[in-house]
Amino acid sequence: MSRFLSKRLNSLEPYVPGEQPHGKKYLKLNTNESPYPPSPAVLAAKNKEENLQLYPDPDAGLLSEVLAAKYKVNANQIFLGNGSDEVLAFLFQAFCDEDHEICYPDLTYGFYSVFAALFGLKRNEIPLKADFTIDLGDYAFCGKNVLIANPNAPTGLSLKREEIEQILKTNAEHLVIIDEAYIDFGGESSVSLLERYDNLIVVQTFSKSRSLAGARLGYAIASKEIIADLKKLKFSFNPYNINSLSMKAGTAAVLDEEYYCMCCEELIQTREKTKRALRELKFTVTNSDTNFLFAKPDGIKGEEYYLALKRHGILVRHFNTERIRDYVRISIGTPLQMDFFLEETKKILKGSKKMQEVIQK
Amino acid sequence: MSRFLSKRLNSLEPYVPGEQPHGKKYLKLNTNESPYPPSPAVLAAKNKEENLQLYPDPDAGLLSEVLAAKYKVNANQIFLGNGSDEVLAFLFQAFCDEDHEICYPDLTYGFYSVFAALFGLKRNEIPLKADFTIDLGDYAFCGKNVLIANPNAPTGLSLKREEIEQILKTNAEHLVIIDEAYIDFGGESSVSLLERYDNLIVVQTFSKSRSLAGARLGYAIASKEIIADLKKLKFSFNPYNINSLSMKAGTAAVLDEEYYCMCCEELIQTREKTKRALRELKFTVTNSDTNFLFAKPDGIKGEEYYLALKRHGILVRHFNTERIRDYVRISIGTPLQMDFFLEETKKILKGSKKMQEVIQK
Repeated sequence: MSRFLSKRLNSLEPYVPGEQPHGKKYLKLNTNESPYPPSPAVLAAKNKEENLQLYPDPDAGLLSEVLAAKYKVNANQIFLGNGSDEVLAFLFQAFCDEDHEICYPDLTYGFYSVFAALFGLKRNEIPLKADFTIDLGDYAFCGKNVLIANPNAPTGLSLKREEIEQILKTNAEHLVIIDEAYIDFGGESSVSLLERYDNLIVVQTFSKSRSLAGARLGYAIASKEIIADLKKLKFSFNPYNINSLSMKAGTAAVLDEEYYCMCCEELIQTREKTKRALRELKFTVTNSDTNFLFAKPDGIKGEEYYLALKRHGILVRHFNTERIRDYVRISIGTPLQMDFFLEETKKILKGSKKMQEVIQK
Repeated sequence: MSRFLSKRLNSLEPYVPGEQPHGKKYLKLNTNESPYPPSPAVLAAKNKEENLQLYPDPDAGLLSEVLAAKYKVNANQIFLGNGSDEVLAFLFQAFCDEDHEICYPDLTYGFYSVFAALFGLKRNEIPLKADFTIDLGDYAFCGKNVLIANPNAPTGLSLKREEIEQILKTNAEHLVIIDEAYIDFGGESSVSLLERYDNLIVVQTFSKSRSLAGARLGYAIASKEIIADLKKLKFSFNPYNINSLSMKAGTAAVLDEEYYCMCCEELIQTREKTKRALRELKFTVTNSDTNFLFAKPDGIKGEEYYLALKRHGILVRHFNTERIRDYVRISIGTPLQMDFFLEETKKILKGSKKMQEVIQK
């Protein structure tokens, strides 16, 4: 720490992203990246963009328009960010303060608490039930802005649209932010609720189903008034936040719906197959609507399993957090990758059971 | 404004970027973009990057290393941002508060005051002298963080390295931030002072001399402690702030020094030639060390000249600010573009003088 840092930031505990291995090659099942490359049309679009000496469109007009057409809203209801992390940061900064607190589940995307700390807000974490589901009663008339990842990470579980609607109805004077990073893998999107609820903000990303984590693109869909607020903040922070290359890649991705639907379908099949296989190996596995599985191995601790997989050349994510310490989060790869993962898992379990028998004798 | 906006942001007045024309084609001399495309090596590098389904390196390791090698510092002394606007925003957020105020000239990059407002800071604007130069005495022992664009925009004037050193010496307990966005067009960089002053932060950009405004890349060079503070903030706001495509393009740009030196040399020649031509037309023109000229026409108001140029298909920047209302800021284009600009300017002046004679009769 330098002697110049503002005391406001002294106690910040930054977000820790999943490991990005340098050197050794791993099968990376730890950051929920897509195992599929962007579509050929996307690669062609970013290759065609050569006028990089010019500033990008600060309003991201064309990309906003194709997104608006896809979601059947107006372009002035779309706000683009440098990844959905930036969109979420702006949401905290624009709409939350001591008079407008925010609450979210205790087991969810770890960044929410980092944002709360960054903007000097109270951490209002509402415990999930023992089975990791949300108790809707906790959010009814809660008197705060509500932030829910739907489907949730790392649990993989999702709420139905009518459940989201209950939260919206009972919090009409507060914002309800639904982080739909994983929505294309099975959940019910809340976008259609925007017609009736002006307190709804839906956040989505190009990093998962659209295979563009490297391009950094996320967006919010909300009322035009809320989007105007976000733009005001953006134009006070970083007007040209979306670079020209990502803008072109993103536009092509939205237009190439067929390719991405195909990828999602294959991924969902692989997820279901992997889930069944893990359950056969006596794992506890939640019913995930995402591109990952949240799974607890039988007879081996979560951390031990995570470390063993790493030795076997496979990275998954382990959270050293009380309630979920025995679980790991496994991103879904290609069918071949998941076969390899399952093979190595079997070896690890076998080794572990042998060890236990040895110890018990 | 939505009914949900935090009152902290109610009174924000966002930065207004230079016009980005849609539809009609203009000769754009209004946002200090480079008239030269990125080098072929840069275009090849971004075309080669196809693994966009993976997150980028959140530490921007390779790009930090090539920059460190160029500036003869360590890689842990480099902080990369999504454009230098983001770097500046992080500097305000990390190092300025009610106990650590910041001051800067009254006529400078307009975004500084927007950042001050965004982070709830007092606007300490120190007037430039009548000839637009900085009075060094104003900054000696000023008891605040200091922010100086060197060379300055929109005046184009620069301080010598020894003058910057005076500011550093007399403010050892405060940060001195030197925004060197235009440094490659003639000024003296302060980077070499980093060896002796741990209160110095130098900010540079890829948007001007490196022809990459569209890629959004800026960086700070400072002590490793200051850079660690900035990273802590970044990892609490947007860890993956640099996308993979811009990272590759930027790395190639740093390595292709020869191309960019050539572009800068040609631009400087064009600037000097344009300056002489404008002075022959009785313009008052400052001695710019940047890729633009700050010029006051004779016998026609600044706004009138700006509007006339626009009618003639040329965009320049006019600031409706008291002390500089009679000036315009003219980005330097290619030699051909500047010939066209001078031709149209002559037509405008001729028309304007005829008008005056008519009025006087």
